[in-house]
Amino acid sequence: MKSGGLRLKKRQPAGSGICATGNRALFTAPQKNIFLGLTDLEAASATSFLHSQSNLNLTAATNATSWDNIILGLELLQPNKSDALSYLDSGAPAPGRYARATVQFGATDEPYIQEWMVGPLPVTNGTTSCTPLNYIYNKGRGYQRVYNADAEALAAFNGKIGSEVLDITLQLLNGSATNSPNDTLVIAGNDPLIHENGIIVQWNQFWGVSTSFIFDETLLPTGLEFKVNVTGRNPSGWSVIGWYYNGNFYETADDLRKAMKVPGFSILGPNVDGPWGSTDQAGEILPNDQLYPPISIQPNGPRFSVDIEEKYVEWMDFSFYISFNKDTGMQLHNIKFKGERIIYELGMQEALAHYAGMDPLQSTTAYLDSMYGFGAGSYELVGGFDCPDYATYLNASFYTTETTHTHPNALCLFELDTGYPLQRHLTETYVSVTKNIILVLRSVSTVGNYDYMFEYAFYLDGSIHVTVRASGYIQGAYFAKSGDYGFHIHDKLSGSMHDHVLNYKLDLDIHGTANSLMKTAIVPVTETYPWSGGVARNTMKLEKSFLESENEGKINWDPNGVFTYTVVNKDRPNQFGEYGGYRIAPGIGNTAFLVIQNSTSLGQAANWDSHHLFAVRRKDTEPRSAYPYNSYEPEAPVVDFNKFFDGESLDQEDLVIYFNLGMHHIPDTADLPNTIFSSARSSMVIRPQNYLPRDPSRNTIHQVRVNFNNGAVTELENFGAVKPTCSFDMSDVFFNISSFDGEVIIPEYPYEPNEYYITNPGG
Amino acid sequence: MKSGGLRLKKRQPAGSGICATGNRALFTAPQKNIFLGLTDLEAASATSFLHSQSNLNLTAATNATSWDNIILGLELLQPNKSDALSYLDSGAPAPGRYARATVQFGATDEPYIQEWMVGPLPVTNGTTSCTPLNYIYNKGRGYQRVYNADAEALAAFNGKIGSEVLDITLQLLNGSATNSPNDTLVIAGNDPLIHENGIIVQWNQFWGVSTSFIFDETLLPTGLEFKVNVTGRNPSGWSVIGWYYNGNFYETADDLRKAMKVPGFSILGPNVDGPWGSTDQAGEILPNDQLYPPISIQPNGPRFSVDIEEKYVEWMDFSFYISFNKDTGMQLHNIKFKGERIIYELGMQEALAHYAGMDPLQSTTAYLDSMYGFGAGSYELVGGFDCPDYATYLNASFYTTETTHTHPNALCLFELDTGYPLQRHLTETYVSVTKNIILVLRSVSTVGNYDYMFEYAFYLDGSIHVTVRASGYIQGAYFAKSGDYGFHIHDKLSGSMHDHVLNYKLDLDIHGTANSLMKTAIVPVTETYPWSGGVARNTMKLEKSFLESENEGKINWDPNGVFTYTVVNKDRPNQFGEYGGYRIAPGIGNTAFLVIQNSTSLGQAANWDSHHLFAVRRKDTEPRSAYPYNSYEPEAPVVDFNKFFDGESLDQEDLVIYFNLGMHHIPDTADLPNTIFSSARSSMVIRPQNYLPRDPSRNTIHQVRVNFNNGAVTELENFGAVKPTCSFDMSDVFFNISSFDGEVIIPEYPYEPNEYYITNPGG
Repeated sequence: MKSGGLRLKKRQPAGSGICATGNRALFTAPQKNIFLGLTDLEAASATSFLHSQSNLNLTAATNATSWDNIILGLELLQPNKSDALSYLDSGAPAPGRYARATVQFGATDEPYIQEWMVGPLPVTNGTTSCTPLNYIYNKGRGYQRVYNADAEALAAFNGKIGSEVLDITLQLLNGSATNSPNDTLVIAGNDPLIHENGIIVQWNQFWGVSTSFIFDETLLPTGLEFKVNVTGRNPSGWSVIGWYYNGNFYETADDLRKAMKVPGFSILGPNVDGPWGSTDQAGEILPNDQLYPPISIQPNGPRFSVDIEEKYVEWMDFSFYISFNKDTGMQLHNIKFKGERIIYELGMQEALAHYAGMDPLQSTTAYLDSMYGFGAGSYELVGGFDCPDYATYLNASFYTTETTHTHPNALCLFELDTGYPLQRHLTETYVSVTKNIILVLRSVSTVGNYDYMFEYAFYLDGSIHVTVRASGYIQGAYFAKSGDYGFHIHDKLSGSMHDHVLNYKLDLDIHGTANSLMKTAIVPVTETYPWSGGVARNTMKLEKSFLESENEGKINWDPNGVFTYTVVNKDRPNQFGEYGGYRIAPGIGNTAFLVIQNSTSLGQAANWDSHHLFAVRRKDTEPRSAYPYNSYEPEAPVVDFNKFFDGESLDQEDLVIYFNLGMHHIPDTADLPNTIFSSARSSMVIRPQNYLPRDPSRNTIHQVRVNFNNGAVTELENFGAVKPTCSFDMSDVFFNISSFDGEVIIPEYPYEPNEYYITNPGG
Repeated sequence: MKSGGLRLKKRQPAGSGICATGNRALFTAPQKNIFLGLTDLEAASATSFLHSQSNLNLTAATNATSWDNIILGLELLQPNKSDALSYLDSGAPAPGRYARATVQFGATDEPYIQEWMVGPLPVTNGTTSCTPLNYIYNKGRGYQRVYNADAEALAAFNGKIGSEVLDITLQLLNGSATNSPNDTLVIAGNDPLIHENGIIVQWNQFWGVSTSFIFDETLLPTGLEFKVNVTGRNPSGWSVIGWYYNGNFYETADDLRKAMKVPGFSILGPNVDGPWGSTDQAGEILPNDQLYPPISIQPNGPRFSVDIEEKYVEWMDFSFYISFNKDTGMQLHNIKFKGERIIYELGMQEALAHYAGMDPLQSTTAYLDSMYGFGAGSYELVGGFDCPDYATYLNASFYTTETTHTHPNALCLFELDTGYPLQRHLTETYVSVTKNIILVLRSVSTVGNYDYMFEYAFYLDGSIHVTVRASGYIQGAYFAKSGDYGFHIHDKLSGSMHDHVLNYKLDLDIHGTANSLMKTAIVPVTETYPWSGGVARNTMKLEKSFLESENEGKINWDPNGVFTYTVVNKDRPNQFGEYGGYRIAPGIGNTAFLVIQNSTSLGQAANWDSHHLFAVRRKDTEPRSAYPYNSYEPEAPVVDFNKFFDGESLDQEDLVIYFNLGMHHIPDTADLPNTIFSSARSSMVIRPQNYLPRDPSRNTIHQVRVNFNNGAVTELENFGAVKPTCSFDMSDVFFNISSFDGEVIIPEYPYEPNEYYITNPGG
């Protein structure tokens, strides 16, 4: 569907202009955002250029079958850091723009993905070239065999199986999955595919189809599963090689049929859709809930500056650039504090959701979600609910299968009063309190059943809080002999246990790139002092040390939090000889790593999941801890994070920290219908330590000193803060939800910028 | 100073009535708050009654010297739980009111404190009695020897020492401490006093007196310290028995003088007051900071109900009573959710700040702050800064040395939109989001240099978040050979390392008092399944178990957070056989226990500091983990928490959980001038687990479901929430700071309710 004007839709945040606002000119970033994704034109020209390469033998995506070669993805190949720094710091020209093209070669018996590098962009005859992209993949090649190239054929195959066992599904599940519009069941299988004795297999389960209340079938597992040998590309070679029901394995459907005829066979029945799974308001209205709750307003308008096009933001003493891509969503670049870069790059790299269970599907499921795409799943935010009514929004764009997708208003930026002060002290004669105003950048990525809220919050003390929260529907297991893997939370539903682990890259630069990682340990000691009269005292001490090499670079937090890690520059001690820098420490909740050791499902595909924190030397050849298709071949992934650890020095080198956020999730009834953000959350705080002479939040005028004597205020010092005094209408405060755009899609091959169309999320 | 009308001062919160507010009647608690502190009349009559007991030989506090017997404190003796439950649940009469009187017996060579029980109140001839209160103290007696009864004499003695070493302080510190108004130094000693070879000693340090900028001398240590034998009550028996400077111990001042004459003796110089220690706004105004930041408003007024007199609150499905006392400040009682009690008692019991250092004062300092009094230090809050402008305030009262102190507006209550949603899910056809509105109860206690912000936040999902944050001035050490104990953060200042550990009592009642503590462990396993073809898979499992007895009741969190603890009622499984209850899990930041093992300074005085979490059987004889004067005799404290652990069953008993919040604090330059709340904080979340059939937040109408198709909204379901549409004036939004009351003090003996007077905090 075509529609006018929406591509450039800019939201007018609610509440703007209710009082006098700042008279700030149109804001332009001081430098080009060299990290920003491909422009439409770049994407179109690169696509066109790729199609002109006869060796690729590409078919236009619109016409392609699974037996064609297609451009699966196209992203900016992020510039090498050295080139980027030359531009950012030394006025050198911007680094050349290259695209990273993910090409799926389907026209072969052994389909595969190969990454290609196209550039420089825009395409110019003679200089632009197209070469295999291998140097950033430590498998040696940006190459991955594809074992599920024929998804449509497989769905048809599974539907055929569903038809063949209709007698079973009717009897056990009171439902059918026969590739018919009247199906009451769907078939969905485990991810990743299983490599087993030289064949490729998948476990599938029948799931209930939501009829009205539950908007995700993940609450309706049936417990009937079958195993398919999906090896090869010829569906006639595929076969069902096993069945699972209620703890038992059957080699064939007939074996299951036979068992069903044996007296005493338990038919457990399906999970049934109902109001219990609906997210809608339900139950009695809470006392006084008919009154409107407190709401945050922004009387003087936004106090940050944003270049919407370049995705560049300045707020107080911070500035940063934002990029966005299909795999990992929003990323931050060149974060400066007080004019000096503190972070070159910060962003989520990959997220794992690893299940366990009695049944094969849950047991073998270990999603690496960047394959599905955190950027692809990051849609328009709901003003007034996802973000305050007055938030400012940015669009997000990415490329997939020869189309550029724009998700309007997918990122929001806003200031917030946290509701508690930043600083406070009372004496006999005065009290001093400072407001805690923060800047938040937020997006929400829906990956199937789960909604991940990603957030970067900037504080006046120079710290950055990195937070992820999870809501949405759990993926439940059918409750049958599964008490060891989760709570029994509804009729036949187990809150299937799983670990979320989200890996972030943090490239801090403290006074340049030559940095070291200081460890501070608080240790109990028994010590005799010159003054202790020979008595040994039980006390504690600091032990400071530096990590020497990557051999020490896999780190776990201490249960009592006695270790802290700070990136410093040893060549730049402060006037007192201390090494100033930024400390990395857990914020809210647990920062989980994966409980499973050497996961059979994951192999080597997510070796960043084994610890809380990692320190490595930064290299242009190691830009990311993960690769979206890593789990296609778990024992030989394209990027094996373990290979980053090759003993290199961490002493005054350019360091990269990878840290994990996450949670161990054992869903209980409180996760019905949805897991809630306030429960499933995790954060890391990146905070200055001995970095400045004192707390920089003293700069803000939004503090008060009240001097008093015997109840009378003798001085009220507000440091020049002026309270707005205008009158305004509450109806101007609320964000007006008048539209909701899923995806605005532009065909890139052929490039038809005016033929864009709008679809629903995932459409 | 006398002043009219202030005693009953009630704040009109800002922003009330800006739009139509609820038409709620005056609100009265359904039951009497039997936990509330003594009334004026009760306190006055108990005081009078105590004075009539000739065996106590009391002197009125106004006339008393350190050689008299005085009433140091008077509190409500909290009712025994069984009596309280009879009243709360079964309509029995309210339990009799008894006062707990802390009497200091100074009229003896060996002064001591004895706790007394006075009641029932009000005093009635013949029935009211006064007996030693011993049963709640596991030393066997509510008795404690006092070793610092003669504080004034000791100050004079120290001043005399200061005068005797004027030559030294002038030369080393360029200052004087001679008990003169012109002193530029003060002398302050370590806490607790040291028991050493049969004598009592204290280490004192000279500290700089703040002249203008720094409002706490704790930033101005000098590094010159002396050790005094303070044994006995005769000042002529007191003596200086050692000196410390720059890492060296000197037996006498003359030894130090001699050393000072040796060439090469280092005079390190004092820390000097200056703008570096001022909390005021300083430095360039931040970009756009002249604009007013976002602010939370409450357009329809408060949505909770509060009985101001009874300190009873109802909000959504929660209700609770608040009490307040001098030692520990605010406490919560009889917290109900959906009409059923979930918590009988919740409150902070004691807080430890344990320092370590090269110098004797820091090394021997281990504050147990309830002696100073968290209630005593909990003063009027600053509207618009400590709490949102629209917050509702409660007064707080306590008794000390025969006066009742009221701190107006010391507690605040408010709802807040957390700025992120509680629930969220997006599908191809709709998005559902729920606001996260919470109720917060807050107080701030200033104990010397530090300001502790205590907070209980109630969430729509039935969870309670218990948070403490710390701001104010650090207690610094003089920087001399102290690099192993903190960072060098200013000229001669070490950010002296210390551990904050705050112990909370949590008496959960899940469907009654017969409860058990379920442990859920996530464990890595290698398992072969019926369906796995003989292949052993690396995966994970849940292991559920129950703590059998107090022998297992000392618990640490796992570094990877794989253990969870839930209080359940095994006799009341839910329909699926799961045990519903409330889970206790760390929230924000680290929940520290003390690093020091068997602290020489603390002895057995704070044995609750050794682990993260404790589970014990509740007993009327063990109401609190601590006693304010425990550190007077560290090796034989009045309450030794270790004695709570006597192997009793934890299987379907009335359980009490004690948990610790806290932080390991290694102050750095970012703590100058003040530590900030967003950095020094810790929280615990008490959350329902399988307690209800589903998430109770579905009840709220402040959620939205947006159905859409191709960018158009097809349905906007707001569940009846009505947005206010009134017009209002911003000048009505802000809290007007027109007065600041420290303490309103009423003499209780003789009782002169109209002779109250107002003083500054600590006045």
